[in-house]
Amino acid sequence: MMHAEHREPTSLAVLADLVGGCVSGDPSTSVSGVAPLDLAGPDQITFLANPKYQEKLADCGAAAIIAHPSLSGSLATPLLLVENPYLAFAKILNYFEVSPHVGQGVMDGAHVHPSAILGENVTVAPGAVVSAGARIGKGTQLHSGVVLGADAVVGEDCLLHANVTVREKCLLGDRIILQPGVVIGSDGFGFAPDGSSYFKIPQAGYVVIEDDVEIGSCSCVDRGTLGVTRIARGAKIDNLVQIAHNVLIGEDTIIVSQVGIAGSTTIGKHCTFGGQSAVVGHVKVGDNVTLAARGGISNNEDSDQTLAGVPAMPHRDWLKATMTMPHLPEMRKELRQLKKEMAELKSKLAKEDS
Amino acid sequence: MMHAEHREPTSLAVLADLVGGCVSGDPSTSVSGVAPLDLAGPDQITFLANPKYQEKLADCGAAAIIAHPSLSGSLATPLLLVENPYLAFAKILNYFEVSPHVGQGVMDGAHVHPSAILGENVTVAPGAVVSAGARIGKGTQLHSGVVLGADAVVGEDCLLHANVTVREKCLLGDRIILQPGVVIGSDGFGFAPDGSSYFKIPQAGYVVIEDDVEIGSCSCVDRGTLGVTRIARGAKIDNLVQIAHNVLIGEDTIIVSQVGIAGSTTIGKHCTFGGQSAVVGHVKVGDNVTLAARGGISNNEDSDQTLAGVPAMPHRDWLKATMTMPHLPEMRKELRQLKKEMAELKSKLAKEDS
Amino acid sequence: MMHAEHREPTSLAVLADLVGGCVSGDPSTSVSGVAPLDLAGPDQITFLANPKYQEKLADCGAAAIIAHPSLSGSLATPLLLVENPYLAFAKILNYFEVSPHVGQGVMDGAHVHPSAILGENVTVAPGAVVSAGARIGKGTQLHSGVVLGADAVVGEDCLLHANVTVREKCLLGDRIILQPGVVIGSDGFGFAPDGSSYFKIPQAGYVVIEDDVEIGSCSCVDRGTLGVTRIARGAKIDNLVQIAHNVLIGEDTIIVSQVGIAGSTTIGKHCTFGGQSAVVGHVKVGDNVTLAARGGISNNEDSDQTLAGVPAMPHRDWLKATMTMPHLPEMRKELRQLKKEMAELKSKLAKEDS
Repeated sequence: MMHAEHREPTSLAVLADLVGGCVSGDPSTSVSGVAPLDLAGPDQITFLANPKYQEKLADCGAAAIIAHPSLSGSLATPLLLVENPYLAFAKILNYFEVSPHVGQGVMDGAHVHPSAILGENVTVAPGAVVSAGARIGKGTQLHSGVVLGADAVVGEDCLLHANVTVREKCLLGDRIILQPGVVIGSDGFGFAPDGSSYFKIPQAGYVVIEDDVEIGSCSCVDRGTLGVTRIARGAKIDNLVQIAHNVLIGEDTIIVSQVGIAGSTTIGKHCTFGGQSAVVGHVKVGDNVTLAARGGISNNEDSDQTLAGVPAMPHRDWLKATMTMPHLPEMRKELRQLKKEMAELKSKLAKEDS
Repeated sequence: MMHAEHREPTSLAVLADLVGGCVSGDPSTSVSGVAPLDLAGPDQITFLANPKYQEKLADCGAAAIIAHPSLSGSLATPLLLVENPYLAFAKILNYFEVSPHVGQGVMDGAHVHPSAILGENVTVAPGAVVSAGARIGKGTQLHSGVVLGADAVVGEDCLLHANVTVREKCLLGDRIILQPGVVIGSDGFGFAPDGSSYFKIPQAGYVVIEDDVEIGSCSCVDRGTLGVTRIARGAKIDNLVQIAHNVLIGEDTIIVSQVGIAGSTTIGKHCTFGGQSAVVGHVKVGDNVTLAARGGISNNEDSDQTLAGVPAMPHRDWLKATMTMPHLPEMRKELRQLKKEMAELKSKLAKEDS
Repeated sequence: MMHAEHREPTSLAVLADLVGGCVSGDPSTSVSGVAPLDLAGPDQITFLANPKYQEKLADCGAAAIIAHPSLSGSLATPLLLVENPYLAFAKILNYFEVSPHVGQGVMDGAHVHPSAILGENVTVAPGAVVSAGARIGKGTQLHSGVVLGADAVVGEDCLLHANVTVREKCLLGDRIILQPGVVIGSDGFGFAPDGSSYFKIPQAGYVVIEDDVEIGSCSCVDRGTLGVTRIARGAKIDNLVQIAHNVLIGEDTIIVSQVGIAGSTTIGKHCTFGGQSAVVGHVKVGDNVTLAARGGISNNEDSDQTLAGVPAMPHRDWLKATMTMPHLPEMRKELRQLKKEMAELKSKLAKEDS
């Protein structure tokens, strides 16, 4: 609820040191913040992550530019040269914009059950609720409207934004960020047919979210029916994503907005799922698999593939098939015409033969 | 939290005056509310917006009917004749159902930071939280569970329904309606690869929502990475929609449920996006573009088009291609058959030639 | 907010009685819980719902196994034989994991309007809000952050999880479960064009949710414009689903995650809608209709069909069409080749004829 205070201005030399780069130009150049190439003012640093924008550099009024050492030509503007300009930009932005959390403790209007255990330097904001037996590690913030269920555990230095729900018995590691409205540990969708209606299968498991995971607004991670739904270390999940019960998401996997992963499916490490894509239940997807936006995986898939479409196929095949789509009506017409010509030809030849 | 008190009955003449129409029949006819054609009782007004339902008028038991002046035939029921019956229906329904907000102030159980600035006639309901430095314009209502972040600004006569989150520094104009569970200003999805894992790119920007915008339940609007995500005046967004960081949505654009607009994309004015459709990141869509449900735009698109499908194509082409889809297996079979016949024919002719 | 206390261990005979099955082996075998086939320990019961896992039984260390009477072969492990092992598993899991709700009353930090009427044995958790005129039936739980609007009615033995919103005048039956973040009764998406902008059509109706319905996290059910949006008895709705205004969902219908049902559409009984599927507005779908994941219905559909694709077609046809998709580029090439050969052949024959 408190927003970060911005840092004091610093020198280009300090920033180069922060990101492991070197300065070309005056290292004492003062920098007070970060801005895009076309908007940066004389006290801001900007970055050139994509060489195709290099022509914009001429008009750039920034204090300094983060760029790759290969940047050719001479510029009046001081440069911070570094192998990965985009990463350096992220780190410098972090330096200026993210200030360390200062714990406010249990604030007036927060509700913490007496049996809950809170670490040092935590913040539990007004309107947040911590249930019986829950534990919160040091440095963690619960914003207003967060509800932490009974016996839930949140590790250290986590940030749970407003109106997040973590249901009972779920376990969160360290440095986890949950954007507003996220739901962790809701019941999975399980019903046993009982005559013409359904009997609810209790969802008796829980969710484990490992360190350094981030989950976007209003995304939902269901608890296991028996056992666990697990989001492994470093995975990043965007807004409005559905992770069903007993799913396992591998380390450093990226899941873009509005994706759905159905129950009991296992996704490997370092995968990337494009927006609105989906994976059916009970399959296993390997490591380093990329699925294009709107794609749908419905079978086990080996590692190291780039897939697209429904059913998922190699991206290159999908592109070709997709590009053919608008030609379908014309193809159908041509086929009819060919059939007609073939029939005429055969009939003509038959006459000549007879 | 208080629901609107219904208005007293009024005369047909008063309603005609409200909507700029004229009465055919008794202008003193008493009307106490609005109901659909087949359910309206003798004290309710109904409407004929679509001429195809005209035959239902005979059985209609309403006090009066809103209709276009071209309505032919003679009816015993009094008529309110107006050029746009649907708009007149909306205005009359508004007259009966929406009562002016009467500010309740900061209610018991609300949490308002002492540094927040509240206008006259506001309501902050029990369980709502207003953070440090936030400002709320006159006549605005925050329902229970709303969390307004630090330095966020909400204009006049806005209605933020229960459990809405507006994060720090976001700016809302006047007469904005946010349905329950909406999230404004969550972090955009930005991560810089750092070896095999990812470094979070701080999302240092904010969101601007202009006047007269409405956003549906559980929709998410991410803040800019640097700078702004903007929803322009009069845009209407349905439930469960994803608007990524640095997107610009033009004036009076309509976005139906479950749509996803990826980062840094610009959408023009007066566009309409059908349910579950999507636009990729970093493209520009012109004005007056309609994208059919489930369509996907992946390139810049000019103004004044009706598109459908993936990749998005003119709606007419998409319809034809789609109608061909079920014939694909038969087309493939025919192709094989033709190839066979062609080979036979050529071999036969070759024999005859030799 | 309190999590269920687990039950004491019991005998296999008691469990057989509970599910109407019979014991093969020692009926006094002690069972303390339920676990999957490969994880069950010596005090747990497991189940064989799918005969294809029968080979796993040999290594099974469970106290007992729930299985169909047709299970062949002799096992050392005691068996609980029953016609529907999956249903029996669900009931036994329910026996061990779900303890009866013990009402905590209006807890400290809850906000209940004095005019609200609460039944016996209810729980209103810290941070939950009950508005003026609302009614709550006996045995019902409102978890933290739940907001119940004015004059809303919730029946008996319901469970509204954290941060659920039920807006004014909505009516919920008995034994309803709403997962966290669910929104009931938000305004439908209705706007009348008024020049180049839009006039909001007041959404003056409400929502009826009948007995035994369950709705998943962050799903949204909009109120009727006039009249009702209805979810009939026993329907089960997964996470992130959109139900628009004036929709009717039939009894025991299953709607999987991220589905969208557009306005004024009627869905029959015992239907199943796969993940990310959709139905357009103003259509009528019969009973016992199954729509595959990602399918899209855009017309009225008769009962007793299994559909898939866009436009929705019989599932078998869709499968064939879909399997042809990857062959499209090759088909196009073959067509071109055939056209060329046909032209050559005709030209050759024409020469011979002349």
